[in-house]
Amino acid sequence: MKIKQIALVNILLWGVCLGQNGSVRPTSNLPDAKFPRINSDLSATFRVQAEHALKVQLLMELGQSTYDMVKGEDGYWSVTTKPLLPGFHYYGVSVDGFVANDPGSRVFFAARKEVSGLEVPSAESEFFAIEDVPHGTVRTEWYFSKTTGETRRIFIYTPPGYDLSTSRFPVLYLQHGYGEDEAGWSDQGHENFILDNLIAAHKAAPMIIVNENGLPGPSFQPPSAPRAGSKPPPVEQVARYFMNEPYETFDRLVSRDLISFVDANFRTVADREHRAIAGLSMGGAQALRIGLNHLDQFAYIGAFSPAIDITDIAKDYDGGLANPARLNQQLRLFWIGIGSEDFLLAPVRESHATLEKAGIRHVWVESSGAHVWTVWRKYLADFAPRLFQ
Amino acid sequence: MKIKQIALVNILLWGVCLGQNGSVRPTSNLPDAKFPRINSDLSATFRVQAEHALKVQLLMELGQSTYDMVKGEDGYWSVTTKPLLPGFHYYGVSVDGFVANDPGSRVFFAARKEVSGLEVPSAESEFFAIEDVPHGTVRTEWYFSKTTGETRRIFIYTPPGYDLSTSRFPVLYLQHGYGEDEAGWSDQGHENFILDNLIAAHKAAPMIIVNENGLPGPSFQPPSAPRAGSKPPPVEQVARYFMNEPYETFDRLVSRDLISFVDANFRTVADREHRAIAGLSMGGAQALRIGLNHLDQFAYIGAFSPAIDITDIAKDYDGGLANPARLNQQLRLFWIGIGSEDFLLAPVRESHATLEKAGIRHVWVESSGAHVWTVWRKYLADFAPRLFQ
Repeated sequence: MKIKQIALVNILLWGVCLGQNGSVRPTSNLPDAKFPRINSDLSATFRVQAEHALKVQLLMELGQSTYDMVKGEDGYWSVTTKPLLPGFHYYGVSVDGFVANDPGSRVFFAARKEVSGLEVPSAESEFFAIEDVPHGTVRTEWYFSKTTGETRRIFIYTPPGYDLSTSRFPVLYLQHGYGEDEAGWSDQGHENFILDNLIAAHKAAPMIIVNENGLPGPSFQPPSAPRAGSKPPPVEQVARYFMNEPYETFDRLVSRDLISFVDANFRTVADREHRAIAGLSMGGAQALRIGLNHLDQFAYIGAFSPAIDITDIAKDYDGGLANPARLNQQLRLFWIGIGSEDFLLAPVRESHATLEKAGIRHVWVESSGAHVWTVWRKYLADFAPRLFQ
Repeated sequence: MKIKQIALVNILLWGVCLGQNGSVRPTSNLPDAKFPRINSDLSATFRVQAEHALKVQLLMELGQSTYDMVKGEDGYWSVTTKPLLPGFHYYGVSVDGFVANDPGSRVFFAARKEVSGLEVPSAESEFFAIEDVPHGTVRTEWYFSKTTGETRRIFIYTPPGYDLSTSRFPVLYLQHGYGEDEAGWSDQGHENFILDNLIAAHKAAPMIIVNENGLPGPSFQPPSAPRAGSKPPPVEQVARYFMNEPYETFDRLVSRDLISFVDANFRTVADREHRAIAGLSMGGAQALRIGLNHLDQFAYIGAFSPAIDITDIAKDYDGGLANPARLNQQLRLFWIGIGSEDFLLAPVRESHATLEKAGIRHVWVESSGAHVWTVWRKYLADFAPRLFQ
């Protein structure tokens, strides 16, 4: 009954009821697309045209669950899923072996390509909705990096009123996960609306947010993802791979080029007490690595569902955790969160236990949810109010 | 031979030679995509996986020309096109009747959906390339419109140095075509790099550029596009449709809400002598309509391959052209351009003749090229240096 109650609120909230069985058109649809639609039990109905195809499948969550679609007399294939969790889902379709996007939905950069997204509405969506509050700006900037020898694209959120103010602001460096890019935190994450709403409610300090691309240069290949029929690698192996993968290039990029560019071109408070670094999944491992290795630059670290498996505080992160007393004195905040259905739960719990045992102070959040943007949006809304206070 | 010479320059310029028959990977490819690739004669080779498909086609230019793809033993389908014109092309694939994007290429908003784009390199591409010059910013802003009663997304280019300066700047309002949106001029058009390069070369005045969505509210349906087997509507009918389609909502949005927001939140010079309006195709018709009806707000009008067919200066544009002497006195620039292969050539030539006959002063550019972004990028590079001088 709870799901149905939420769904009813959704229909009122989103107000785009199409009048057919109470289903709604998600905000992720392209302007003229009637499908997909979300039904009152939070199942979703998909419909694509493929009149000569022999087999069409819906691939939810980057193929983690599949549904056979059924051909109608009109040449359209359709399927209704089981009830979905509220929030953001990646998906695609397979048409006779051709894996593609749904022409009805907006795409988002994930898995190193453009992937269809589905936003299942929820009463909980309010915190990242476009409310009637002052809005900040998401800027696309280009700057030259000496480290990579190229002009790079970055995204920078400036808070409401930044342009008309003469104040200086603290800065959060916020990173995406493996396979995504610098657009992830605005396109999928809605970092700007989350901060707009927190700032309007006086729950977070006005701040600048910077998003870089965490995979500069040739990408590295992670341990192969689980596939049907093949044995997945142990999850600790995945976590340790991302924790230990040489991130030197990205570390230099952030700690030298990026911070210099931001401090020279924006009204920042350019000291460690007004600088935070956080990230999700691979970006969480990077935030720990860069933050712990540059305590002269950062006083706040956030790790959202991070790809970490900390077992040895003397050796992990090149000794960045080896001096708990110094860490506790220098870090104003060390935040770690993971969802109870996240595939990284075990190694992140182990990391938490290792830090606890060593007396390294940190905020520990074990929430509901899996390894998805729905969770990371909530983590940002929990993390940002704790910064720069 | 000329095409081959250009292609050789391309390979040197772009420097991404994959060593296989001298083919290059276009900048529109997704990071890990080996295909499509551009060959030395500027043909393009496409390759997609669809192991169980019966028929796969390449649809170039939104389906205006099609190629049957051929299945290889590995389950991949491929085809090499005839030599393509340098510049930007929309395309897609059809797999057993399923019309979709190529998973190898970036997508762009066109035809009211997300469509694969192919950038065929050229020595002429330099003017919109990312050069080692100071870069401006492309801002995504949200503002509330009283006209539509909603918070709307807009794109605003601010020139290099805007943030560190205290100067005020003139503003160009620049609109996309039918089926595209406010992202078109930065994503497909590269307005920011074009202006960065012009400003660095002291060829254009530093200016702000504003892009809104020219189709607010429910979209209208244009006269049906030409389809195989059906007779296309006369081109004059298409042109007059877009010229006369009631744009009141968009006119109010721009002339009341948008200009107020921009002048209140950016360091503009808020008078007609420092405000221009231009657009392409449908946006060209809108620029004429809004510019001619608000001469108190705009002193410069640009129409790039505009959907216009001006035959009667007394009646067209609600009499906005009826007083040539006043127009000639008030407009600092009235720029009209069209490509010799553009399907709108005849009605735009007729419009030019009508203006000539009436003695309405305007810059007339008849260039090579069709109804494509390749042409509109060049038009912006011709138009912008004439503004605010």
